[in-house]
Amino acid sequence: MSILYDERVDGALPKVDKAVLLAELQQHLPDLEILHRREDLKPYECDGLSAYRTTPMLVLLPRHVEEVEAILKLCHRRKVPVVARGAGTGLSGGALPLEQGVLLVMARFNRILDVNPEARLARVQPGVRNLAISQAAAPHGLYYAPDPSSQIACSIGGNVAENAGGVHCLKYGLTVHNLLSVEIVTVEGERLTLGSDALDSPGFDLLALFTGSEGMLGVVTEVTVKLLPKPQVAKVLLASFDSVEKAGRAVGDIIAAGIIPGGLEMMDNLAIRAAEDFIHAGYPVEAEAILLCELDGVEADVHDDCERVRQVLEAAGATEVRLARDEAERVRFWAGRKNAFPAVGRISPDYYCMDGTIPRRELPGVLRGIAELSAEYGLRVANVFHAGDGNMHPLILFDANQPGELERAEALGGKILELCVKVGGSITGEHGVGREKINQMCAQFNADELTTFHAVKAAFDATGLLNPGKNIPTLHRCAEFGAMHVHHGQLPFPDLERF
Amino acid sequence: MSILYDERVDGALPKVDKAVLLAELQQHLPDLEILHRREDLKPYECDGLSAYRTTPMLVLLPRHVEEVEAILKLCHRRKVPVVARGAGTGLSGGALPLEQGVLLVMARFNRILDVNPEARLARVQPGVRNLAISQAAAPHGLYYAPDPSSQIACSIGGNVAENAGGVHCLKYGLTVHNLLSVEIVTVEGERLTLGSDALDSPGFDLLALFTGSEGMLGVVTEVTVKLLPKPQVAKVLLASFDSVEKAGRAVGDIIAAGIIPGGLEMMDNLAIRAAEDFIHAGYPVEAEAILLCELDGVEADVHDDCERVRQVLEAAGATEVRLARDEAERVRFWAGRKNAFPAVGRISPDYYCMDGTIPRRELPGVLRGIAELSAEYGLRVANVFHAGDGNMHPLILFDANQPGELERAEALGGKILELCVKVGGSITGEHGVGREKINQMCAQFNADELTTFHAVKAAFDATGLLNPGKNIPTLHRCAEFGAMHVHHGQLPFPDLERF
Repeated sequence: MSILYDERVDGALPKVDKAVLLAELQQHLPDLEILHRREDLKPYECDGLSAYRTTPMLVLLPRHVEEVEAILKLCHRRKVPVVARGAGTGLSGGALPLEQGVLLVMARFNRILDVNPEARLARVQPGVRNLAISQAAAPHGLYYAPDPSSQIACSIGGNVAENAGGVHCLKYGLTVHNLLSVEIVTVEGERLTLGSDALDSPGFDLLALFTGSEGMLGVVTEVTVKLLPKPQVAKVLLASFDSVEKAGRAVGDIIAAGIIPGGLEMMDNLAIRAAEDFIHAGYPVEAEAILLCELDGVEADVHDDCERVRQVLEAAGATEVRLARDEAERVRFWAGRKNAFPAVGRISPDYYCMDGTIPRRELPGVLRGIAELSAEYGLRVANVFHAGDGNMHPLILFDANQPGELERAEALGGKILELCVKVGGSITGEHGVGREKINQMCAQFNADELTTFHAVKAAFDATGLLNPGKNIPTLHRCAEFGAMHVHHGQLPFPDLERF
Repeated sequence: MSILYDERVDGALPKVDKAVLLAELQQHLPDLEILHRREDLKPYECDGLSAYRTTPMLVLLPRHVEEVEAILKLCHRRKVPVVARGAGTGLSGGALPLEQGVLLVMARFNRILDVNPEARLARVQPGVRNLAISQAAAPHGLYYAPDPSSQIACSIGGNVAENAGGVHCLKYGLTVHNLLSVEIVTVEGERLTLGSDALDSPGFDLLALFTGSEGMLGVVTEVTVKLLPKPQVAKVLLASFDSVEKAGRAVGDIIAAGIIPGGLEMMDNLAIRAAEDFIHAGYPVEAEAILLCELDGVEADVHDDCERVRQVLEAAGATEVRLARDEAERVRFWAGRKNAFPAVGRISPDYYCMDGTIPRRELPGVLRGIAELSAEYGLRVANVFHAGDGNMHPLILFDANQPGELERAEALGGKILELCVKVGGSITGEHGVGREKINQMCAQFNADELTTFHAVKAAFDATGLLNPGKNIPTLHRCAEFGAMHVHHGQLPFPDLERF
């Protein structure tokens, strides 16, 4: 994938002398771990979105919050841009460094400070891995609910920055719904606590504002998360359909029946075949679409819900509904889903993963629209996604070595996101905007809305030094890009066709 | 109660000529309903917190969003402060008008625009009553979860402004957790949509920021709420204890056991006796404290949970645990709780209702602290509250006709809120800050945190014309007031003793 981002559009960043900055940091913070040689900087060139690469000027690896405060104070005074980075697993380039900036790597903040089963919370440093929190809580029968696919590697600080989701966020919410408070350091090097251990905080809800702000409002130095009791039992139903639209409608039917599954995932035929070839999960390879519906809770309740879901699925036209016979089969069903991305990677030289979110009721129409666009652009699209919350991950298959295919894939991706916005959805569900989707933000929001975002950004960071060029596009960028806001399906300007 | 608020502290508001403003409004908006005569303004002098009263300059009752836009544009140009008002049931004076301002009453925005059972959402105007949404959704087996005690009267727009809670918010969340989007008009008269029908919105989470902002960031003109399926069955357990501390500990034990009740309420002996005298709910009048624990869901699950809760309560030292035998007894149990405030009103000439929120684990200690403060100040305190989410409503009983009692009640109230802040809690759970608790905000937050609030306010309303003097105190006010931030139990300045 080429780099769509154009530095010029967001204005030239101030030039800083690397040697001067390095000397000053070493003088003020003699214990701070600093990487500055080209070969040491190399591993930090990109995050999980490897198509975008920049070499940072310096990489700083603080261990103490006082160091973070001092770094930010110094960078603020010197007008040096700062990009914070967690585990670097993000999929939208949110932690992409800047040539003229420092990369603040929070990996050394890796301690679990407190697990309190009575208050059902854990206080952890931002570099702690998502899964490590659940592991630390396990002896108390508790876990941390949001479970992005990268949970073995991604850090909770990055989860806060991106408002990460996962397979179970339909029932248990996104990161923002599972936080009590964060400690942050502002661009000026001041430490603030947002939120509290209590139910609600007076004043404005700055915790929610901060969550998902992609490093633009401050640097997370501590996180207090809610813990939930582990469900007694979990069962999975696999339903086959002879059309993706029927499967899409069944998703709405399950929710409308008053059932909130622990997970509700959909795969289309291309994804089913790829996953089955790779994992041998026991999927029906002739099905046009399958739904995986997990029900969790207490035994009696889960049994009851399984029967109700089966009825809904059959009424929606499922050709077959199978309950995983045992735990081994349940794990196999999920293994196919969880490995669908690498499985698709085996059948195509390249693929481009989208992250649009739409109202559930629009699933059948949008799936039909994607199929039509796929035919129009001559590129295969595999659909694998969190159907229950309308968070789609169409994978566009292409071969970057074939002239024109990369451009066609990008154009098709843009069209798919446009379709999501048209039906009242958004351009990202859980992967964030980052650098990748910054231009699409011009289509998602109008000038008044973007101006409000900029005003909020300025309230925290008037200098614009925190993670510039990500998440919120400048109005200038949107004008250059030529995209216009799509509202309620209207295309106010023919210019949109350039999108 | 006396009016603690001192206009001078927040700076003089600009003087506006009433006749000029009235003429201008009539000229530009000939169809707009305007109240301007003294006797017509009288009913709008206060909201649910009747101790605070001001006569607004003009009351405006728009019917269309275009009128709201025009009013705000005109007031912005003329520098006239604007206070928005829903049903006027708020308990912290958030809708208290200003003598030099207009009161924008949204009561005419009373239409339910859409109930969509498949998408499980309702789109309504802000003047629609909370309960009316559930009534409109009932034919589909759905309801709107947040249920403030005033739900028969309060409007959804006011619920958004205050981030209202209710008995069921432990399980189903506050208003912010049950919203999809709001349409607002800014101080400059521009219409914006915050949030969307989709799971998550890219950019900053302005919907969460706006919810609970108490009319300081904009005026709500449309609200889209989530609807939930009505639980199949609900059962209530009543547990008696011989000490409030044991009851407080039992609350933590229930939650730690992995059970999330639909409601978990506590009353102490004074409240029990008052309610029993009034309602004859069948409460044990000898008990030092009772817990009411409602479990809702599917039949089998509720049955299972009732048994587990009974075991936890008995292990926590309950002297008696009774399951409401039938629906009639369940309703009686709740009637006692829901009428506890008026019941206390029958045994004391005056009472002062607090709204502190604390981490659940602090309940036993804070209840003990309240008892000690009650003895020290020589005033009885009845405790009736949402125990499950640590949202306390201590009612301080006093007689305003006895010299010094009002002042003692106010001082005791301040001490109780200080205690809540000390243990990591907050000065308000669900009633908002409004005008009543504006001084306590100086104790809750430090100067850096308040400065961040002001910067966010300025991002939406640099002129400060939207609901000035509420919710967020000026730094000047805090300096005048002499209160200092209490952090982690430390009292950094002896001045705090004045609080």
